[in-house]
Amino acid sequence: MPGLEDQLRRPVRGMRDITPEQFYALRRVEDSLSRIAEAFGYRRVETPAVEHFEVLARKAGREIVDEIYYFRDKAGRELGLRFDMTVPVARVLSYRLEEPKPVRWYYFTKVWRYDEPQHGRYREFYQFGVELVGSDSPRADAEVLALMAKSIEAVGVKDYVIRLSDRAAMDKVLASLGVEGSREEVLRILDKRGKVPDDEILDMLRRAGLGGGAAEALMALVSEQRPGSEAPDLFSKYDKSLGERYSRVVKALDAYGVLDRLVVDLSIVRGLDYYTGMVFEAYAGEYKLAVGGGGRYDNLIELYSGIRTPALGFAIGVERLMEAAGIAPAEYPLDYYIYPMTEDAFKVAAEVAEALRNKGASVAIDLGELTLREALEHAAKTGVRHFVIIGKKELEKGVVKIRDMRRRVELEVELGRIREGLQSLSAT
Amino acid sequence: MPGLEDQLRRPVRGMRDITPEQFYALRRVEDSLSRIAEAFGYRRVETPAVEHFEVLARKAGREIVDEIYYFRDKAGRELGLRFDMTVPVARVLSYRLEEPKPVRWYYFTKVWRYDEPQHGRYREFYQFGVELVGSDSPRADAEVLALMAKSIEAVGVKDYVIRLSDRAAMDKVLASLGVEGSREEVLRILDKRGKVPDDEILDMLRRAGLGGGAAEALMALVSEQRPGSEAPDLFSKYDKSLGERYSRVVKALDAYGVLDRLVVDLSIVRGLDYYTGMVFEAYAGEYKLAVGGGGRYDNLIELYSGIRTPALGFAIGVERLMEAAGIAPAEYPLDYYIYPMTEDAFKVAAEVAEALRNKGASVAIDLGELTLREALEHAAKTGVRHFVIIGKKELEKGVVKIRDMRRRVELEVELGRIREGLQSLSAT
Repeated sequence: MPGLEDQLRRPVRGMRDITPEQFYALRRVEDSLSRIAEAFGYRRVETPAVEHFEVLARKAGREIVDEIYYFRDKAGRELGLRFDMTVPVARVLSYRLEEPKPVRWYYFTKVWRYDEPQHGRYREFYQFGVELVGSDSPRADAEVLALMAKSIEAVGVKDYVIRLSDRAAMDKVLASLGVEGSREEVLRILDKRGKVPDDEILDMLRRAGLGGGAAEALMALVSEQRPGSEAPDLFSKYDKSLGERYSRVVKALDAYGVLDRLVVDLSIVRGLDYYTGMVFEAYAGEYKLAVGGGGRYDNLIELYSGIRTPALGFAIGVERLMEAAGIAPAEYPLDYYIYPMTEDAFKVAAEVAEALRNKGASVAIDLGELTLREALEHAAKTGVRHFVIIGKKELEKGVVKIRDMRRRVELEVELGRIREGLQSLSAT
Repeated sequence: MPGLEDQLRRPVRGMRDITPEQFYALRRVEDSLSRIAEAFGYRRVETPAVEHFEVLARKAGREIVDEIYYFRDKAGRELGLRFDMTVPVARVLSYRLEEPKPVRWYYFTKVWRYDEPQHGRYREFYQFGVELVGSDSPRADAEVLALMAKSIEAVGVKDYVIRLSDRAAMDKVLASLGVEGSREEVLRILDKRGKVPDDEILDMLRRAGLGGGAAEALMALVSEQRPGSEAPDLFSKYDKSLGERYSRVVKALDAYGVLDRLVVDLSIVRGLDYYTGMVFEAYAGEYKLAVGGGGRYDNLIELYSGIRTPALGFAIGVERLMEAAGIAPAEYPLDYYIYPMTEDAFKVAAEVAEALRNKGASVAIDLGELTLREALEHAAKTGVRHFVIIGKKELEKGVVKIRDMRRRVELEVELGRIREGLQSLSAT
């Protein structure tokens, strides 16, 4: 039989198979990120991969709607695969109105976007993120920023920066430059920076109505980078109360020990339209890879629940973070490979295996199809730590023979000792 | 703003949201099942939710194809959501031909089936299962059966049975009854037992060509239940070598200590067409809920890889197993809720929080929007264990006040002790 044609053997374009050595690397990252979120009092939620398309579309900006995997089920329902977890969380809270606020939830799960696949960017990928719902407090802003910083640190990244802007501040900036109705358009143009040369950005801004040097002034402003500690001063130039808010955010960030990781960068826009306050993006590792971002969206929950509810959060692309952290695949070899030389020895092998498994060891019993030599080769190839031989001679003596595959030494251990459940055979 | 209409606030029909108290119950089950699979030397894999439809359809039987969530992406690819993990694993192995055999892989992940939702049956649900690929050995059969038994036990189920049949044996049984070409049809009819009255089954069997008492003989045979230890005798009546195979399977099951859990029940068919040898189903809990099943499918991997590869496995429906085990939602309350009475106290609160988090505690800091009384109410309602107050008085004394919310006692702890990182504040 010919089997599948080559292309069908591979995952669907833009997606990836996660074999064990990749899985255990991913799981370690999941554990680290879960631990830090839970330490901050966040609790994990999960929702269906499939949502009503209308639910997804209600939030998604123009760019995102095009990226949704859309389909109809057999009853004709219009459905789609979720593209983030902020929408499902907002939906869940729209019928769980009694949930005590503030709600601190986090997630580590798959999302899907029909995007052009690139290095480290997949059409199915994992997102880790948090939602802090029901608080308007500057402390909430600082908490979410601090948690993002600690999350990045939790996977071993030392070199990172969080770039911060504020939608409300940008409103005032644009107003001060005389920009009136075209605010969204201007933000969209700014969001293209880095992808399009600055000359072109300038032209586009002028065409959007920023005349008389306003385009140049705006470009100058968004090209500057200031330490996070200067946010209050900068923002108070445009709005005194915003400056005061940020002096509280900055104070709390300082208390969290992460203030020096923040940079004020007014060019941070974040494509989606629904942000209302703080917006930020994190860049990590040697190549300053964009690993995630977030912000405050005080109008979003209301779109779903009908009840005005301030909220903010962040999302991190897990594969990108792992790349920034340089996390390599992790082998998970067997602790023991037990080779019963005869059918009679199998009973003892099962007993030894159970004793070792009860101690937390990972143990396979040979299936009786390999010669001793083949089994030893298989064990060596797959990184097995200890190879256990139970033959006629061993059965008569009441022992098993254990070969340490790394130190290349062999010893005999009495069955009685194994039955008693020794702490670790390798230590003997 | 009115928010979403009611129906859109709920998950898509047949799917469910997993809020924290459900998530942590699920996670505990995942941990137990992963631990037992890993103890048996199995390693975890994960694959995309989305597969080429052709890959899914190649294995799926008639019933299953209709249950696939099917769609086209924007490039016109025909895709579908996976309905099990056996297909993706077979696909992965079709391009990773060098993977040392036997391959022991397991999974704990979501699958999707457009089925009629019932109590405990969802359209998106979790499957835990294993694939043992590359072995034809009776020991492999016993290993997979033993691992299924130990998996069910691992989540605390004591009351369960595994019902076993064998496709090869059924072939011989049907041949002995003079059934020739209509074997698949007969199996399909038998698979309806329990849903359709036995009279009707008999009629259907007769119409399928089982005349002269053959239908009655077959019904008598599939109505009997024998202890697993009788499998060798029973099967050897129809095929001597099969009887010998099962005497080895039974011996190994005995070594694993699970033989008494096995019942030979020739009515076990399992809908899918691709089984070639042993087939089994597990029933657990007071109501003998069907929680999963599996078997040997020596032709399946070849459909994908083109290379004949014996294989077997099982899959357990996690939600069903949790129901059989009576696993209740698990609260995961905060260890500490810290309430800084002033803005100045926030710095100390952040420091205390960090010290506690480093010790593994789950700690939230109040966001400054609740009065002390409101915060205490919130803490009581959400099951917080310790409520920490840091006010002006405490700052002056260099202490924090800790209220044990269960024992309703309060004590003061010196900041110095917290900074030194005490083992547990609750033990003081």
